[in-house]
Amino acid sequence: MGELSVSHLLGIKYLQKSDIDLIFETADHFKEVINRPIKKVPSLRDITIANLFFENSTRTRLSFELAEKRLSADVVNFSAASSSVKKGETLVDTVNNILSMKVDMVVMRHPNPGAGVFLSKHVNASIINAGDGAHEHPTQALLDSYSIRERLGDVAGKKVVIVGDILHSRVALSNIFALNKLGAKVKVCGPLTLIPKHIESLGVTVEPNLEKALNWCDVANMLRVQNERMEVSYFPSTREYRQQFGVNKQLLNSLDKEIVIMHPGPINRGVEITSDVADSKQAIILDQVENGVAIRMAVIYLLASKIKQ
Amino acid sequence: MGELSVSHLLGIKYLQKSDIDLIFETADHFKEVINRPIKKVPSLRDITIANLFFENSTRTRLSFELAEKRLSADVVNFSAASSSVKKGETLVDTVNNILSMKVDMVVMRHPNPGAGVFLSKHVNASIINAGDGAHEHPTQALLDSYSIRERLGDVAGKKVVIVGDILHSRVALSNIFALNKLGAKVKVCGPLTLIPKHIESLGVTVEPNLEKALNWCDVANMLRVQNERMEVSYFPSTREYRQQFGVNKQLLNSLDKEIVIMHPGPINRGVEITSDVADSKQAIILDQVENGVAIRMAVIYLLASKIKQ
Amino acid sequence: MGELSVSHLLGIKYLQKSDIDLIFETADHFKEVINRPIKKVPSLRDITIANLFFENSTRTRLSFELAEKRLSADVVNFSAASSSVKKGETLVDTVNNILSMKVDMVVMRHPNPGAGVFLSKHVNASIINAGDGAHEHPTQALLDSYSIRERLGDVAGKKVVIVGDILHSRVALSNIFALNKLGAKVKVCGPLTLIPKHIESLGVTVEPNLEKALNWCDVANMLRVQNERMEVSYFPSTREYRQQFGVNKQLLNSLDKEIVIMHPGPINRGVEITSDVADSKQAIILDQVENGVAIRMAVIYLLASKIKQ
Repeated sequence: MGELSVSHLLGIKYLQKSDIDLIFETADHFKEVINRPIKKVPSLRDITIANLFFENSTRTRLSFELAEKRLSADVVNFSAASSSVKKGETLVDTVNNILSMKVDMVVMRHPNPGAGVFLSKHVNASIINAGDGAHEHPTQALLDSYSIRERLGDVAGKKVVIVGDILHSRVALSNIFALNKLGAKVKVCGPLTLIPKHIESLGVTVEPNLEKALNWCDVANMLRVQNERMEVSYFPSTREYRQQFGVNKQLLNSLDKEIVIMHPGPINRGVEITSDVADSKQAIILDQVENGVAIRMAVIYLLASKIKQ
Repeated sequence: MGELSVSHLLGIKYLQKSDIDLIFETADHFKEVINRPIKKVPSLRDITIANLFFENSTRTRLSFELAEKRLSADVVNFSAASSSVKKGETLVDTVNNILSMKVDMVVMRHPNPGAGVFLSKHVNASIINAGDGAHEHPTQALLDSYSIRERLGDVAGKKVVIVGDILHSRVALSNIFALNKLGAKVKVCGPLTLIPKHIESLGVTVEPNLEKALNWCDVANMLRVQNERMEVSYFPSTREYRQQFGVNKQLLNSLDKEIVIMHPGPINRGVEITSDVADSKQAIILDQVENGVAIRMAVIYLLASKIKQ
Repeated sequence: MGELSVSHLLGIKYLQKSDIDLIFETADHFKEVINRPIKKVPSLRDITIANLFFENSTRTRLSFELAEKRLSADVVNFSAASSSVKKGETLVDTVNNILSMKVDMVVMRHPNPGAGVFLSKHVNASIINAGDGAHEHPTQALLDSYSIRERLGDVAGKKVVIVGDILHSRVALSNIFALNKLGAKVKVCGPLTLIPKHIESLGVTVEPNLEKALNWCDVANMLRVQNERMEVSYFPSTREYRQQFGVNKQLLNSLDKEIVIMHPGPINRGVEITSDVADSKQAIILDQVENGVAIRMAVIYLLASKIKQ
């Protein structure tokens, strides 16, 4: 088996295509493992991982925790609510303290873009970015592309549209990087106030009309409307959003071909997609969740291999 | 060994007497296990359990968690405070997401009566109700009857009075179902405003006078005064409650026979029961807690056996 | 191997010098263990430990949790936020409930001085005090003295100054007891309003001038400025504190010898010590954290040996 070109997973931006391919091949193996009756392998009995969540999270934290436990790593959890961050300690001091307890790897979610990159330069541990503000969410993008590969056989050459608030979405940015590296064609679609200027420089095109976007694509990745991350005045109302950018079954049926529907969750049913779309066979939303555990096992396993050398 | 007639534990209402007998026999075995130096068995190494607590809980959550760990199951915890429920996701979506991470069983406490029943119809996992609003708390009733059987040899034919706020108590309702199925005679006693109308249709009788109730019974199950669950105007003041429905040692000593005192905890010492009652040999409150772990191991073990088939 | 003279670790006050020596020798062994690739020993597979934190804590809770897991103990966590303490239950009832689930040992942080001592008289389990108000924090003092021994070869005969808010610091009090028992000479230094009257009765002397104190000592233990524990009016402003009691590199370089700098964390960089001091080779702050896990493994292991007899 090969090895990663990086010692941290800070963003898709820093990965080579060969890294992503290696992660996918490794995830294929772990996906098989987690579908066995005994879902555990003893691979990382000698690794201790700290999950540092400076922002609330349900699915991502659970997914990482299950991935870690199924690799037999020792796991400690830390959430900001009870943290000494509130006592005026710096992030580097907090993490160095935890590392001094012989922790090998840190999975971190942090509200500040670049927190993971900053940390990786100042501490001696492998860092996995589990979401840093509106910047990157690399394991989400990996599991998204892995799920496209699983459903359509390959990512290269596929047409993917990302629909929603592109401006504030770490999921969108990481997906754009991953899809480009894997050879997909990418369009973004959403309210123009929520699409960054110059986004074409990232190798994507803008299609403001949802119907045109869907008629073009093989896969539509429907981002969650994140009210908590937006300035109110920028945004169309929920009702307007649904009318212009929501997908219902009627719209799907009117297309020339059967496209794949993705969603990073949690879903606002009736806003981004209606229930009949979410629960249809075209949607691979729960496959994404299942693949998330396999992808995270692969990333942790491959980074741990580099620590052990 | 036999098997349960159900695939979920949603309420005592749905159990047959033979199910309860099987749970008790299985709990006998596990009670012996947890009194060994090494309190663990490897039975459920292939089962992953998610504890979903949408309401705060200390003793029930800890008891389930210890039961799961002593069966060697993989455990993930989830509490509402940090949940995507707040982001507008439906309960079914939340649980389906967690199940997609290859979780086999869900232990759920939820403020809404019927949440467990609803969930069991929409997701593909074994559900254990750890308390759903004022509806049922089946493992509590099982451990209560198991503790009566342990102290008095059998439940059949025993006279049990449940004292307190019957109207809002899931413990009371589940106990009534369990005691009836096991052949006990049941009375309820408490402020009449806190006893549901037509409760006789559940096969119990109302005895508003505490002294008469105690003189009749073999066992008194003293419910906690749950201020947080009641409308203030309905209720007698704490002082009035204590005077009319509180049990002290003097009252106990005035009875013709030595009755057994139970309490589901947490105790308000000096309200439902005085300290000399709580700490007396007639009280089996801590036995109830100990038996709770054995009962929960039994329920989880038996439901897991059905999953593995 | 010997055994401890006590069944609980409630405070350094209750330990004999031979107890501390035994803890240090045992910690030497565990420090070697946690520097191996596989950092775990199977010693306490038959012990269940409950961590009860009635006050928030990051580093102490994580350190205990890692120590327990590396001894292979079963661990359950409990924090006050979700506790039945809020439902009016007494501390003894809460703990007795948990112990009835077959828990052998309780690690407790509590805001009330003496909570651990009180509990040890009323429940049947081994209690470890992880900080009780402004009273004692014995494992912190043990890891501090252990770190001095590691750096300077011995504690006996060494001169140690404790700098800061002595009045409200459980770290200070436990350190004074430990250093005295181990034969060190101790001075305290800080704002006179924050030094208890009659502190000389504990066998220490007061040196209000930081420069004189540093010129005298081998080791300076710089307490954290704990704004949350102080009445505002008592205290000099942060700026005044820094000027009079903060240590910077220039001051350190002006001394006749190279002293050792300690800090229990979390650091307020630029207040108690500047960054160039915190990150210098004279500072052993991260060694303290690492040694904390070994010390806690030793304490838990030795107390568990007494339970098993």
